[in-house]
Amino acid sequence: MKIATLRLPGRLTAARVDGDLLVEIPGFSDVGVLVQFPNWEDIAAQANGPIHHISSVDFAPVVPQPGKILCIGMNYRAHIAERGTPMPEFPTVFGKFADALAGPHDDIPLPPEDHKLDWEAELAVIIGAPGRRIHPNDAMSHVAGYTILNDVSMRGYQNRTQQWLQGKIWQNSTPLGPVVISPDVLSPDAIIRTRIDGEIVQESTIDDLLFDIPEIIAYLSTFVTLRPGDVISTGTPSGVGVAQQPPRFLQAGELLETSIDSIGSMRNYIVSERMETTSRRAFQGSVALA
Amino acid sequence: MKIATLRLPGRLTAARVDGDLLVEIPGFSDVGVLVQFPNWEDIAAQANGPIHHISSVDFAPVVPQPGKILCIGMNYRAHIAERGTPMPEFPTVFGKFADALAGPHDDIPLPPEDHKLDWEAELAVIIGAPGRRIHPNDAMSHVAGYTILNDVSMRGYQNRTQQWLQGKIWQNSTPLGPVVISPDVLSPDAIIRTRIDGEIVQESTIDDLLFDIPEIIAYLSTFVTLRPGDVISTGTPSGVGVAQQPPRFLQAGELLETSIDSIGSMRNYIVSERMETTSRRAFQGSVALA
Repeated sequence: MKIATLRLPGRLTAARVDGDLLVEIPGFSDVGVLVQFPNWEDIAAQANGPIHHISSVDFAPVVPQPGKILCIGMNYRAHIAERGTPMPEFPTVFGKFADALAGPHDDIPLPPEDHKLDWEAELAVIIGAPGRRIHPNDAMSHVAGYTILNDVSMRGYQNRTQQWLQGKIWQNSTPLGPVVISPDVLSPDAIIRTRIDGEIVQESTIDDLLFDIPEIIAYLSTFVTLRPGDVISTGTPSGVGVAQQPPRFLQAGELLETSIDSIGSMRNYIVSERMETTSRRAFQGSVALA
Repeated sequence: MKIATLRLPGRLTAARVDGDLLVEIPGFSDVGVLVQFPNWEDIAAQANGPIHHISSVDFAPVVPQPGKILCIGMNYRAHIAERGTPMPEFPTVFGKFADALAGPHDDIPLPPEDHKLDWEAELAVIIGAPGRRIHPNDAMSHVAGYTILNDVSMRGYQNRTQQWLQGKIWQNSTPLGPVVISPDVLSPDAIIRTRIDGEIVQESTIDDLLFDIPEIIAYLSTFVTLRPGDVISTGTPSGVGVAQQPPRFLQAGELLETSIDSIGSMRNYIVSERMETTSRRAFQGSVALA
């Protein structure tokens, strides 16, 4: 089973992927809404709404409004090694908000305030059944499926203080999608890859994870209830731009491609952002920025 | 103008505070929903729904489902001094999610996993008009009002890694309320206070802020669109438990009281949490935790 969230004129819809066709799941505006229902797999399997060819659809972030986006930092052994830090005893956790998300084929803004735009391909878990203090042996029964997230990071802001958040939540910086696949479809040694204009810059198997998915779910649910549609991003492999000699950052016009076997790929162009403001002063027609 | 969110049987409602009376604002389930409407002050002023006496009401987190909760760390000069760190050049920013919120009179769970439960009284801003790249001179026009947040922190988990989040988002750990007041009501030298069983442990005026509210709004809106109902917590004054000699943490049975002049106070008892799990395995009746 593969499901997606599509942008149609004036609305979103959840859809089932049947090869090159996307079949709307009527009554469900997105995948995050769909997975609130314990029988969502039956609903998706039986849906027979309007059909769209993949060549004509516009993919939204596959879960457009997750209640929580919890990200694990430093979780691939080779990435920890490239950072030069010791293997951590506990998972590093930071957050994102829905405002940070972008569709899997959307342009990613290169903002005027920070040109140190870096890539971090990640396998993301979408929570199905809710739970608190979930036992690792039971964790997989709380997983709706997997998708891809690129934790595109503004390294300038990220490193202004010890807390990374301000480099991690830029508006529409984080593509999520294109589809959610059932957990059983993903091979334990699936390859995760980032390409820039076709050049491979990150390539790893997902089994290089230091804390595996059941451990992460158990850990996070120690302190907070995981809910349907929550997104957990599991960390990035080695090969990020800031770790290169010299450091390399994404440039306007480059194509960022993020893929995981069996899930698919996201293709996002980096586009210089016009300095726009929606300050109230600007709405009133006067100059908002010096 | 003061507004609140009340828990009634089977529903929430926004309400206007008229002295000791709370007047329901029909059609608006909470303050976060209400402030989506640019004319929310008129709506609130004209509301004449059912009336409740303050002695009989149960206050919800005043914004129960904010899209974003952005917290500023190390922002009172005296608190920075007690941490022994230099005055920062940039605001430190971390996040919370709605799951972390508690009502202003709810019990705060003392979890079995971390007994280093500390207090951080904070002035919180509720965003009204949305905006991106807001000019500091214009920032106050984006503020719906102020409330109180106690950034109750699990210091054990907070300090497991460099990223604080895992000590900041425990389920129902962060009381928010009891009311939102109009910005003009708050005195620039209002006193913010934390008491434990009546003993004052934090006391400051809010003008000890290193980055003031317009600066914070301008800074955060550089990277993300601020939206109606978003919560910005502005940092805590000196006097947190972990900075005391020896460190002091909240104990089960203690009453945590957090107050700011003109806004009011929150009273939360600390209660030992039973080790509960809602792992799927537990739902199925078998043993979920070793």
